[in-house]
Amino acid sequence: MNIYDIAKLAGVSIATVSRVVNDSAKVSGKTRAKVLGVMEEVGYIPNIFARGLGLNSMRTIGILCPDISDIYMANAVSYLEKNLNKHGYDCILGCSGHRQEEKEKYIKLLLSKRIDTLVLVGSTYAGKGDNPAETEYLRLAAKETPIFMINAYVPGENIYCAYADDFQAAYEVTAAYIRRGKKRILFLSNARSFSGDQKRAGYEKALIDNAYPVDGALIFYSEHSIHDTRDMLLLNKKLEFDGVLATEDSLAIAAVKYAKTKNLAIPAELSVVGFNNSRLSICCEPELTTIDNKGEILCAVTVEQMISLLEEKVQPKEKISVPCEIIKRNTTDF
Amino acid sequence: MNIYDIAKLAGVSIATVSRVVNDSAKVSGKTRAKVLGVMEEVGYIPNIFARGLGLNSMRTIGILCPDISDIYMANAVSYLEKNLNKHGYDCILGCSGHRQEEKEKYIKLLLSKRIDTLVLVGSTYAGKGDNPAETEYLRLAAKETPIFMINAYVPGENIYCAYADDFQAAYEVTAAYIRRGKKRILFLSNARSFSGDQKRAGYEKALIDNAYPVDGALIFYSEHSIHDTRDMLLLNKKLEFDGVLATEDSLAIAAVKYAKTKNLAIPAELSVVGFNNSRLSICCEPELTTIDNKGEILCAVTVEQMISLLEEKVQPKEKISVPCEIIKRNTTDF
Repeated sequence: MNIYDIAKLAGVSIATVSRVVNDSAKVSGKTRAKVLGVMEEVGYIPNIFARGLGLNSMRTIGILCPDISDIYMANAVSYLEKNLNKHGYDCILGCSGHRQEEKEKYIKLLLSKRIDTLVLVGSTYAGKGDNPAETEYLRLAAKETPIFMINAYVPGENIYCAYADDFQAAYEVTAAYIRRGKKRILFLSNARSFSGDQKRAGYEKALIDNAYPVDGALIFYSEHSIHDTRDMLLLNKKLEFDGVLATEDSLAIAAVKYAKTKNLAIPAELSVVGFNNSRLSICCEPELTTIDNKGEILCAVTVEQMISLLEEKVQPKEKISVPCEIIKRNTTDF
Repeated sequence: MNIYDIAKLAGVSIATVSRVVNDSAKVSGKTRAKVLGVMEEVGYIPNIFARGLGLNSMRTIGILCPDISDIYMANAVSYLEKNLNKHGYDCILGCSGHRQEEKEKYIKLLLSKRIDTLVLVGSTYAGKGDNPAETEYLRLAAKETPIFMINAYVPGENIYCAYADDFQAAYEVTAAYIRRGKKRILFLSNARSFSGDQKRAGYEKALIDNAYPVDGALIFYSEHSIHDTRDMLLLNKKLEFDGVLATEDSLAIAAVKYAKTKNLAIPAELSVVGFNNSRLSICCEPELTTIDNKGEILCAVTVEQMISLLEEKVQPKEKISVPCEIIKRNTTDF
């Protein structure tokens, strides 16, 4: 039960419920009575009432990620939980998946838990980045609690974002491939997302700046497993490439396995670069050159800003961009 | 603030606080007044009072694991969160690390959150399995809320355990090595734990049953990274082995990398088996034979038992043992 449900049951807007809770004079007596009646009926305790009861802050942070079994997200949540706990905050975790409906449902659910702030891990919450309607739910939620986004940027009041400069990193790798004489560079990506789109934009910009064509055939999306992605590449017999920029390490490993099946020498005949500098990148053979997108720094910045806001009322920065680092291993010769 | 703190502040036992909360006649008027006074002072609301206030269950499950950045645990928490959420329960997550003090602190903290049950993921919570004093904190906590353990067994009222039969799996792999003529089988393990000790016991039993010596030099503990473990094995020049049973996939990958550095053919000269069937196992080259310890089934059984308890008051089973499965890939010839 949260403010959304109360508004719906009382047949009024969220703003009206908020005014009743905050004892604003702008609400008619009749409306006020109706809203309070619904609240009593369902046993809803808004934050402000809780405060009156001496319960104040529950010192609880809501953390939402699409999938905690993803290594990048597990590392982020691990860092956040450990460091927020040091500051005396507990974490409620939600795993929403990538569907819009589920993302919205989970945010409402976490908001109903009297959380102090909400952290969204992963660029899926920013939608595809080209449609503001897709992120309207965040601006709505930010009216109730400060929102901190990790690895995404969404403009809005009370929304604070820390993200890696994926565009620049993808640009640099693509440019390095071109300097090394690579002719056909495959952009290998999973789902479209804010972060994926940044990487693709950096890749395309580097091609254009070097008078290379942007060839749609070299943009390959796969949301499948390592083995299935390898097999999809193998089946696509007309697809030729001598370099791969993958938007995450598991896709890069699929490309390494593709090279092994085709007996291509790495890095001479096929070079491969992944993203995330995950533990997977040191498991494969040869070990993977990968872009470290500084998940830990993004989390550290987020915790720092959040604690300053909660404890000292310091207004956080709206956006903080952190440069990536290319970790050079054995799948490239740069 | 929880029942432990109240007991301490009032200078009485937890049992006494419990009796006061439950309005038992066995408490003197003076003691009752003292306990209630402390409760009022600190604003403590025990579950039973919450019930009286109509707050009843918060439909919240506490989940504790030592380290959510561990792939096995991240997968377990992912499964638990998704399926508990389907039943209308939210999850509070804690990551305690492996130190006894921290484990105890976190359990108290989660108990203070008015959780419906507590799930402990990972065998670290069972201690080393040979000292009941190490698990006394769990039996104490189980007086307040049902405890469900995943991949560990601790005897005690209100403690319900689901675990993989690691002993049997380690026994079978070791016996298979012996049948294939392997002479020196390395047991490669990280920290000692309930699960690690089961694996070692299975390994040693298979050696003994086949009239092989149990050689302490072939029992190798490393809590270090993949590269550091490989290097430790390389530095240990007198250590010779032709088979490896590793207690987790990352250690097995260290052994694969050791073989590569030493130019040993896998599996002919060195065979390697990991544990967990994690994503790492398909990243390395050759891909890893590994023991699937059925984390998802353990979680499914746990959710099923928990929901039956919470919704239908069905008493859960004290322990459920699930057989492992050997996933055969390219680091063994069986």
